[in-house]
Amino acid sequence: MFLGVRIAATSLWASPEVVTVEQASVEVGRSPGWIRRRLGVEQRARFHGLPEVQAAHAARPILERHGAPDLLLNASATPRQLIPDTAVFVARELGLDGIPAYSIHATCLSFVVALRHAAALVAAGLHRRVLVVSSEISTGQVDPSEPESAALLGDGAAAALVTAPEGDEGLLAWVMHTHPAGAEFTEYRGAGVAHPPSDPRTTLADNRFHMNGPAIYRMARKRVADLLDEVRDLTGLSPGDFDLVVPHQASGNALASLPRYGFDPDRVVDIVGEYGNCIAASIPMALAHADARGRISRGDTVLLLGTGAGLSVAAAVLRW
Amino acid sequence: MFLGVRIAATSLWASPEVVTVEQASVEVGRSPGWIRRRLGVEQRARFHGLPEVQAAHAARPILERHGAPDLLLNASATPRQLIPDTAVFVARELGLDGIPAYSIHATCLSFVVALRHAAALVAAGLHRRVLVVSSEISTGQVDPSEPESAALLGDGAAAALVTAPEGDEGLLAWVMHTHPAGAEFTEYRGAGVAHPPSDPRTTLADNRFHMNGPAIYRMARKRVADLLDEVRDLTGLSPGDFDLVVPHQASGNALASLPRYGFDPDRVVDIVGEYGNCIAASIPMALAHADARGRISRGDTVLLLGTGAGLSVAAAVLRW
Repeated sequence: MFLGVRIAATSLWASPEVVTVEQASVEVGRSPGWIRRRLGVEQRARFHGLPEVQAAHAARPILERHGAPDLLLNASATPRQLIPDTAVFVARELGLDGIPAYSIHATCLSFVVALRHAAALVAAGLHRRVLVVSSEISTGQVDPSEPESAALLGDGAAAALVTAPEGDEGLLAWVMHTHPAGAEFTEYRGAGVAHPPSDPRTTLADNRFHMNGPAIYRMARKRVADLLDEVRDLTGLSPGDFDLVVPHQASGNALASLPRYGFDPDRVVDIVGEYGNCIAASIPMALAHADARGRISRGDTVLLLGTGAGLSVAAAVLRW
Repeated sequence: MFLGVRIAATSLWASPEVVTVEQASVEVGRSPGWIRRRLGVEQRARFHGLPEVQAAHAARPILERHGAPDLLLNASATPRQLIPDTAVFVARELGLDGIPAYSIHATCLSFVVALRHAAALVAAGLHRRVLVVSSEISTGQVDPSEPESAALLGDGAAAALVTAPEGDEGLLAWVMHTHPAGAEFTEYRGAGVAHPPSDPRTTLADNRFHMNGPAIYRMARKRVADLLDEVRDLTGLSPGDFDLVVPHQASGNALASLPRYGFDPDRVVDIVGEYGNCIAASIPMALAHADARGRISRGDTVLLLGTGAGLSVAAAVLRW
């Protein structure tokens, strides 16, 4: 089902403070070679401020050029605080008053979900300029004894402005599947009702990110293959047909596995070496990175593709 | 902008364990009379389990009668844990595998936002049966030294099934405004990047709900009046015209103020005495409560109206 919509602008921002692979090696007790080989990460940004500050750094260039939005969506996994939701603080930081602001949470897939949400509202004529921001700050909450995540997760933010189309741009297809059998493969068990911060039984481990990379990979492999079959059935496009592929920057290994599905490595955006895995910000950061380098032209078919805690898999096909 | 959509079913569930006004009086150090007068609360449910269990109790009767949904939206302020998002656990609890499941967070207005989101997707033909659940468990996280919130917040859940219309049912209007100047009026400052659970500087007060009732009320009064003017401009309907008014159950005082805007008290759903303020679950619980009692007929105009942390105000007008 086609939704006429245009991504009018993209932007990314990451802190200039960088954790190099050598520094990470000391922090997690693995060699730089191990981190490079297993995770594909050469460096990651580390930000000591608040999510809305990072989000505003990403969004400001878009607002300066395109003016204020009429809807603000925060599409992030890590919140600023429990209440109010993070979108309110992003609005405050950007000086936006009066427009609706709220959050969509689908962990690493939050941006892909928010993009479709924005597209449905714009296509229905309900909004004209939707600003979607993803801002993740996780480097302070990793478990150093779990190098697979502690040396992988990075801080960063991205923004995209979704407007009405000027031609035949739009969302050609969107597919998502959630398989709760994988709910425990990626977890941060605290910060909610299950293990409240104020409960003395809540442990430090509950308040850290945990990932079972091999389990995710095993479950995702088949699910992603099925998802790509579904995309082909819906659009007629096979992996080799996309002009640009913007995957979630799950890990170097995950990105390296993409050619097996038939993707051309030259058309896959790979920024995990420079930024690590920035949770929900990874896909819009990769999109903005490619956009800034002139890798997308109007009329191109662009595939956004990712997995998220859940386990969920999702794909969005855009005609740019 | 009209979105053709039908609320095919509603349901609510609250724990049989009840905190009476007498028990609350002991817990917060105020007389039962004070609680009744200031908050309008006679009792509230208290649930010791997980949000997805409460959500599933509410949703199961709908699924048993109408079958499985093709999209699951969790519209709640309090999460089960940080990652994965709560929708995954609701899907698991309901035995749903493969449908997209994600969360929308706009604190007390989460259901109102999710309803419009569902309506836009159904009206575009992208989904046929969207299950929206709201489940809030906050009674364990209140601050007993702040009776205005500690004797007000209750636990509860509600669900609604959104489908394609069978006639001229639909969402006639939807308006929301977020005013970040009120960001600090309702807060739970912990459980995020600002005051992480693992940070020793995070205080117990950070991990409790706080409400500045009078400040919210002062700001909301004018904003709600403006919102109702906007609804009238969009639909031609004034407060006295609605067949049913389903307000957020913010407090007894907030509900008592509604006739000032021109609402007929007999058409306003008031369940705060029985359930307290159940955050995002309050509006769908009130809707389900009225629906179960035969207070809504097909063709009726129904107004959902609320304020949320932010400060946000929102209204949705449905033709039932």
